[in-house]
Amino acid sequence: MMKEKITIIKVGGKIVEEEATLAALLDRFAAIEGRKALIHGGGRSATRIAERLGIESRMVDGRRITDEATLQVVTMVYGGLVNKNIVAGLQARGVNALGLTGADCNIIKAHKRPAGKVDYGFVGDVERADGDMLSKLIEQGITPIIAPLTHDGKGSILNTNADTMAAETAKALAGLYDVTLIYCFELPGVMRNPDDDSSIIPSITAESYRTLLDEGVISGGMIPKMENAFNAIGNGVSKVIITRADAIDGTEGTHIIA
Amino acid sequence: MMKEKITIIKVGGKIVEEEATLAALLDRFAAIEGRKALIHGGGRSATRIAERLGIESRMVDGRRITDEATLQVVTMVYGGLVNKNIVAGLQARGVNALGLTGADCNIIKAHKRPAGKVDYGFVGDVERADGDMLSKLIEQGITPIIAPLTHDGKGSILNTNADTMAAETAKALAGLYDVTLIYCFELPGVMRNPDDDSSIIPSITAESYRTLLDEGVISGGMIPKMENAFNAIGNGVSKVIITRADAIDGTEGTHIIA
Repeated sequence: MMKEKITIIKVGGKIVEEEATLAALLDRFAAIEGRKALIHGGGRSATRIAERLGIESRMVDGRRITDEATLQVVTMVYGGLVNKNIVAGLQARGVNALGLTGADCNIIKAHKRPAGKVDYGFVGDVERADGDMLSKLIEQGITPIIAPLTHDGKGSILNTNADTMAAETAKALAGLYDVTLIYCFELPGVMRNPDDDSSIIPSITAESYRTLLDEGVISGGMIPKMENAFNAIGNGVSKVIITRADAIDGTEGTHIIA
Repeated sequence: MMKEKITIIKVGGKIVEEEATLAALLDRFAAIEGRKALIHGGGRSATRIAERLGIESRMVDGRRITDEATLQVVTMVYGGLVNKNIVAGLQARGVNALGLTGADCNIIKAHKRPAGKVDYGFVGDVERADGDMLSKLIEQGITPIIAPLTHDGKGSILNTNADTMAAETAKALAGLYDVTLIYCFELPGVMRNPDDDSSIIPSITAESYRTLLDEGVISGGMIPKMENAFNAIGNGVSKVIITRADAIDGTEGTHIIA
């Protein structure tokens, strides 16, 4: 039997945190036909609210050190402010959106990352995303809107990278659906030269990825994103595309090939 | 056919905002057998976070004036901080909790209250709670945890009184379930003398309510609570009890009689 299609979109902070870009994104997301889910970030808002509360934001390799005060901030901002604005905005566009963290319906359970060279604090490494539970919701006509928060099953919320949440959600649904996962970022795709739109790399395989790493074309914050993309495509997800938020119809961008 | 029972608990700010009282409440809530839902407040946390953000909290008759900055605070605090801590705490106790605002799955739609003598700002008066949608979730084994926020269907979240949310949720489920609604507050029930535990009034009818109002036994913030209680009991809810959070098994307290 053919599996139903589902489109999973991951959008980063900047796009969901500015009114005009958020409205445009929600219009495009609402227009996607069939089953869908959205995973969002919210880091810039978290940094701004933390600053106003007098809480210092400390980042290591682009990842937020999450002490107890910071955990409260990200729980408020990701789970409340950003998530509920998206949910209300989609309801206004006829999408039956449901905001979720990993704690809600226990959809994504994690454990606190053990302190290594860096102690990231209340940061969660995903143990299990529950595709069956998500599917039960989706089959009721519900569109999950997932904030980058998990829980440890012992009562604590944990801060979790949104790219990882997207990969884990896509993998968990891959047994049940024909999944397309689209990572949105500020460029039309992975570029040989970020200033030259024609330098977009149409597809990247595990082999060409190693070459691009060696050449320094892919570096820094793009490396964990690529690793999440390969994790998804290597675990049953049908398509993984990295592109710009205005191209979530999947017609543009860089395809990640297993 | 006998309707299934459901217990709906409303708990106010103080209880859900202090770690020890929250833990005790969650233990007791987890122990309730059968279907259940929780509606929570969070006003003290909202006031505290607003103060730290330099946003003044203005109250009229115990109701918060909700300007745009305050709406952001209550969206963060009720929908994020308070709600997700309860959800994670219940998941740790084996309850498959799902945090909801009125926007999520469009469960409670409202309209912005027109400015009268007082302009309450982004405050919602409930139009419709969707008992069918809630029931679909509940029948999946999900326990709704509802924050005091609604939406207007046009993209805006609205701040809504938690007692009213509880009454509207109970009414919406009354066609489908045998509903017990328990309002928790700081006293064991409605008291003739707040300092004398033996002065608890076992039941209040519409008639005795008028007398209690005339006598001044019920006044101030208790009046809207009583009105919500009568609204529920007059619209299909089987039992409405006002009691203390440590008596949510329904054995103590004041019964509201239609």
